[in-house]
Amino acid sequence: MAPSQDSSENNASYTFKVTVIGSGNWGSVAAKLIASNTLALTSFHDEVRMWVYEETLPSGEKLTDVINRTNENVKYLPGIKLGRNVVADPDLENAVKDANMLVFVTPHQFMEGICRKLTGKIRADAEAISLVKGMEVKMEGPCMISSLISQQLGINCSVLMGANIANEIAVEKFSEATVGYRHNKDVAERWVQLFTTPYFIVTAVQDVEGVELCGTLKNAVALAAGFVDGLEMGNNTKAAIMRLGLREMKAFSKLLFPSVNDSTFFESCGVADLITTCLGGRNRKVAEAFAKNGGKRSFDELEAEMLQGQKLQGVSTAREVYEVLAHRGWLELFPLFSTVHEICTGRLPPSAIVEYSERQPRSS
Amino acid sequence: MAPSQDSSENNASYTFKVTVIGSGNWGSVAAKLIASNTLALTSFHDEVRMWVYEETLPSGEKLTDVINRTNENVKYLPGIKLGRNVVADPDLENAVKDANMLVFVTPHQFMEGICRKLTGKIRADAEAISLVKGMEVKMEGPCMISSLISQQLGINCSVLMGANIANEIAVEKFSEATVGYRHNKDVAERWVQLFTTPYFIVTAVQDVEGVELCGTLKNAVALAAGFVDGLEMGNNTKAAIMRLGLREMKAFSKLLFPSVNDSTFFESCGVADLITTCLGGRNRKVAEAFAKNGGKRSFDELEAEMLQGQKLQGVSTAREVYEVLAHRGWLELFPLFSTVHEICTGRLPPSAIVEYSERQPRSS
Repeated sequence: MAPSQDSSENNASYTFKVTVIGSGNWGSVAAKLIASNTLALTSFHDEVRMWVYEETLPSGEKLTDVINRTNENVKYLPGIKLGRNVVADPDLENAVKDANMLVFVTPHQFMEGICRKLTGKIRADAEAISLVKGMEVKMEGPCMISSLISQQLGINCSVLMGANIANEIAVEKFSEATVGYRHNKDVAERWVQLFTTPYFIVTAVQDVEGVELCGTLKNAVALAAGFVDGLEMGNNTKAAIMRLGLREMKAFSKLLFPSVNDSTFFESCGVADLITTCLGGRNRKVAEAFAKNGGKRSFDELEAEMLQGQKLQGVSTAREVYEVLAHRGWLELFPLFSTVHEICTGRLPPSAIVEYSERQPRSS
Repeated sequence: MAPSQDSSENNASYTFKVTVIGSGNWGSVAAKLIASNTLALTSFHDEVRMWVYEETLPSGEKLTDVINRTNENVKYLPGIKLGRNVVADPDLENAVKDANMLVFVTPHQFMEGICRKLTGKIRADAEAISLVKGMEVKMEGPCMISSLISQQLGINCSVLMGANIANEIAVEKFSEATVGYRHNKDVAERWVQLFTTPYFIVTAVQDVEGVELCGTLKNAVALAAGFVDGLEMGNNTKAAIMRLGLREMKAFSKLLFPSVNDSTFFESCGVADLITTCLGGRNRKVAEAFAKNGGKRSFDELEAEMLQGQKLQGVSTAREVYEVLAHRGWLELFPLFSTVHEICTGRLPPSAIVEYSERQPRSS
């Protein structure tokens, strides 16, 4: 399981070779960030391979061909040049075969299948990083995406999360992100180097689970914030609900993984990502519409109407969290998380978000 | 200095008598919250006296007469009934003479004068709580309002801060607040009792300075958030600047008062108040206008035009913080705070907020 951060690292002629697995909106922006750095830094191979789930465009052309010809992901990030050293590749196995730095950035429901296909096909010295939000809930408990990657592929996996609305980073507006790493600080520093640009500031903390759970759980809190917006309850209430959400994110993470640090929640992946997501994200937006309709139109219906094929992470995260809470007998400890799920399923009205979020004795 | 929380506390016939010193927007809402509780709880005297800085209204009537006749503060909180047990009193000395619970809620620049007038005029067993934001910067260092009260009046002083836009609480929208207390948990619990209602949830933490500095410093961060809004830099950038602001709030508080707890910043007074203030407050709003005008119209001018006589706390807080930083040689440790002040004074353009806030090596 431990990666081989071996002696070759000190050899100047050694280059790191990066493959980005995924090419949606965020994946394309990640490829752009990375490609600007691999060109500039001598320790990285210039070329960044990007695995693209092949599609045929309305023009009849293959998406990969258009990306390689125009240097733009015309479908998921139109108008933005990715860098001429980004090479789109529709063949997953081929895309990863030379890489020793693997960047995973796909919708979380595809990750199990991708890992299965990659088993035995990657370099033994590869390091992974996951930008994927979400977790798999199994009978034995929740499985984080970074663990899925580590376990399935036998490699070390870090994570990168933060206040990262992809389209804003694409146009080079200033933002921050957090790398969570497990043991090896050198590996973390390399990921920081690979992603940092003057407008994208990355900080590393030794807390994979804390960082990853922040990225995942904030989408459930964003639904709560959206309900408050839909009910027009004002900024005090919204701030209070976001704070209670942050408190439950912290408590849930620490119950699952006692190694999680409080300080992680002050990083970009914590409070900043929560703020961005509760101000502008799509989970907030659809939840607002849901509350405005008094819960009479389902999330599926609103999602189809409002998001043009993008999926809401928050609703499934809320369900997954609820399953964990129910399984472990923790429902009463997490009134906000439980209530969000019960509103999503129609068991409670949207107005319950305030009433129920406050129902337990307060310890802090 | 220590308050006399004496044996009389255990005597059921003993009642606590509350006076609110201040009757602006927030003071009037505080009186309303308190008055609903003194009526309901047997340990408190029903009547809540509210000291009002006397004004003659355009009708020719005295403000105190109108409040006592209509039960409304027609000037600062029109349309809201305060409770019939609230008695407006224009005589400061008379207002406090029987009270053993003093609630201070005036603009911070009036506090020194008020304390001077009250010296020797209050009950020896009185407890105080300050809802006042701001601090006094003196040659020997910053003096918090709670310390000013304690030192001048020789009584113990707690604080109450939180995500509390007064007009939203006035119409009973849900919010939270934090009481910061020094030693005596019973006193803290009594303040919690006095303020808590079903829509206003109060939590006590043993950290006067942490809570008070949160309430004060957030206004400087709100200016930074307003600049970002005025420059239309998007939600990622705004969230990043808010996070960096929270980090500097924490670092500044802990440098001044090593007893300050990290966990305080997760309370309503910390992250929630910061969010409310950066979403909707007047500091944010005027800073947004300032940035939209490229810094060409001064804060004084915009304040006069936009706030109808209300004053901006953020600009003076930023100056006070800057003085402390300059005096102690800490300017480089606090790039966001320093930059906010330098933008306010015109030494830097509003766009510097991002560029300069990130200029120092990052430790977290």
